[in-house]
Amino acid sequence: MRATVLVRPKPGILDPQGEAVESSLRQLGFPVAEARVGRVVDLEVEASDADEARAKLAEMCERLLANPLIESYEIELERDA
Amino acid sequence: MRATVLVRPKPGILDPQGEAVESSLRQLGFPVAEARVGRVVDLEVEASDADEARAKLAEMCERLLANPLIESYEIELERDA
Repeated sequence: MRATVLVRPKPGILDPQGEAVESSLRQLGFPVAEARVGRVVDLEVEASDADEARAKLAEMCERLLANPLIESYEIELERDA
Repeated sequence: MRATVLVRPKPGILDPQGEAVESSLRQLGFPVAEARVGRVVDLEVEASDADEARAKLAEMCERLLANPLIESYEIELERDA
């Protein structure tokens, strides 16, 4: 099953990469605000149904893909998978 | 207007970070495949409507957020913004 995991810095956590992106975009003439940078991980996971896939992906996030202390994650499954 | 930009390595482009994630997940006992790692950028963009926001975001991607040679991007706008 195809899945997409979005990992983002939690609110309140410093995000130097987001600050750099915001500052650079402003210098290019784009008046943006509140830029935050995270990671997107696309992968194929073995699971017999969506519930099992979500449970496995949540465990992968807790153990490897995210740092639960400072990052939140969001799991999306492909609908037609 | 709140926007989310997903930047991913194009198909065929080597993705060492994705390979490392896949290898590490397998070692943890998760039989995943085709892992690819990209970036997610959340930001607030000034625009009077969705079309203008999309045009601005596309230009930001071409000029700063993505490397169009090796990365593709996807723009999502918050519906109720």
